[in-house]
This record gives sequence, C-alpha cells and structure tokens, in this order.
Amino acid sequence: MQSLQQKASEWSGVDPNDAFAIDETNLFEKLGLQTFINLSTNFYNRVYDDEEEWFRSIFSNSSKEDAIRNQYEFFVQRMGGPPLYSERKGHPALIGRHRPFPVTHKAADRWLQHMQQALDSVTDIDEDSKIKMNNFFRHTAFFLVAGDELKNQNQSVACKHAANKPAAE
Amino acid sequence: MQSLQQKASEWSGVDPNDAFAIDETNLFEKLGLQTFINLSTNFYNRVYDDEEEWFRSIFSNSSKEDAIRNQYEFFVQRMGGPPLYSERKGHPALIGRHRPFPVTHKAADRWLQHMQQALDSVTDIDEDSKIKMNNFFRHTAFFLVAGDELKNQNQSVACKHAANKPAAE
Repeated sequence: MQSLQQKASEWSGVDPNDAFAIDETNLFEKLGLQTFINLSTNFYNRVYDDEEEWFRSIFSNSSKEDAIRNQYEFFVQRMGGPPLYSERKGHPALIGRHRPFPVTHKAADRWLQHMQQALDSVTDIDEDSKIKMNNFFRHTAFFLVAGDELKNQNQSVACKHAANKPAAE
Repeated sequence: MQSLQQKASEWSGVDPNDAFAIDETNLFEKLGLQTFINLSTNFYNRVYDDEEEWFRSIFSNSSKEDAIRNQYEFFVQRMGGPPLYSERKGHPALIGRHRPFPVTHKAADRWLQHMQQALDSVTDIDEDSKIKMNNFFRHTAFFLVAGDELKNQNQSVACKHAANKPAAE
C-alpha cells in the first residue's frame, strides 16, 4: 500500500526533498511576519470571492478573518517562526482538522491556483522562497487529498461493522 | 463546542502554555540525538513487553524498530532538530496517523505511564527538560483522545447518511 507521502509525491509531482526544502532556510526570518499576513489575506480574498460556489462553500463555516489567522499562524510556525498556531490551537494535525471538508483532487487544484496567484501578487517574496513555498504547498495539498481518501476507506469499514451489529440507538 | 485544544487541556490538566514550553529552549540541541533514540527505545521496550494485552495489541501491526524510529524522528523534528520525520514520511498529521488506533483515555494513561518511566530511566535528561517533555506528552496524548472522539462522531453521521441511501455495492 502506498504511504501518504508516496501518494502526495505522485499526485503533486513534487519530491519530498523539494517539498521540505522550506526547512533549508528560515523563511520566517527571511520574509517577516507581515509578508505571511499579506499572503494569507490575499489568498483568502480570492477564496471567499471565488466564482465557483462549490469551492467557496467549503469555507463557509469560518469567517474570513479566522481563516486568515489560522493559515498565517500555521505558516509562520512551520517556516521557522514562533509556534503561534500551537499555542492557540494545539498541534496542526493537518489531516484531522481537514476531516470535515471534501479535500478532492479538484479542490486541491483550485486551492493551489489561488495560492499561486497570491504568491505572485504579494511583493517581497523572492523567487527562491516562492519556489520553495510552492513545492511545499503542492505537496501538502495532495498529502491532504491522500488523507481524505483514508477517511472514506475507514468510514465504509466502520459502517459495515455497524450494519452487522444490532442498532444501539 | 469545545476545541481540541480545550479538551486536551481539560483532560490532561496541562495548560497550552506549559504544553508548548518545549519551544522555549531547543531541546534537541540541549539533549542530542542519542538521548532521543534512547528514550524511544526504552519506551517501546516497555510497550512491546506490556503485560496488558489490550494495550500491547494496539502496536502489533508495526515492528518495534519502526515504532522507535517513527517516534524519535518526530520528537527530534518537533523539539528543534532537523525535520527527519517529514523528509521520510511527510507531515506528522498526528490525528490522521492515529486514526486506525483506539486512542481512549485509558490508552493515553497507559502510554503516559510507560513514557514517564522511560523519561526517569534514561540518563542525561535534566529535570527542567523532563518537566517540559512530560507536559508536552500529557497534553498531546489527550489531544489525540479528543481527535479520536471526533472520528467516532463523524463515523456515526456518515453511517446514518449511508443507511438512508440505496446500497451502492
């Protein structure tokens, strides 16, 4: 069976070494907090204005402000800055926290399209950092698609078990 | 609804600030790789020899060697060292990767009991580091119990949906 990492690499086309090249330099120290805030703000402005209702609706249970803060705090923490996200919310637990959402290949592609445009719009991100972040985002997006498929497998097994037992409700 | 972080704090009795005090010092630089290898080896020797079959069996699908490596690579990465875990396996995704296992309060308590003994057995861990690691482990164990309960909620909803549809198999 393919691992999450193998699926993420195959589907994203990004080798793990390239995905985690974000750890070779401290991107937080290089870019600074405000750049991460700008990136997430630019990204979620696009997402919440997306003309595709199926995609926009994935985010409809969060306010844009919360979505922005959750994202840039995670990015800051993961890219060498202070652990803002964990102090407030605990472990990133990326697969667990995405469980309520349909993280399909199509959704990953659209997320990446908006993020690519956001990266290109925000000034102060040099070309090398942009490549590193892009590879990290691509790999992570498809890692989450792999995590989502795991959920569906588990569900059908659990339902079969439940169906073989007398109703407990 | 209580968040994962709130449940983890309530059940573990550990405040998030204490749980993530591991980020105040670089524990990897302070303790070194070999100490983490020793800790995980000591811990899993206890786990795989546990007289309680219900607990031992949770780990029966992994070899002890794999379990040790997965754990110390994660600890090293999370406590200030190189990202050994992510380069090999991707994001820690703690809740997602624990999905196959019954992470109950009872299992968390037993895990922590073995880890406490392992921390006390391994030399070269100073008292301050031990307190920080203990708080991190306690909080994380109950964070995963909270993550496990989320899974059960989602399952019952999904099965109800499935039961209302014609069988597709």
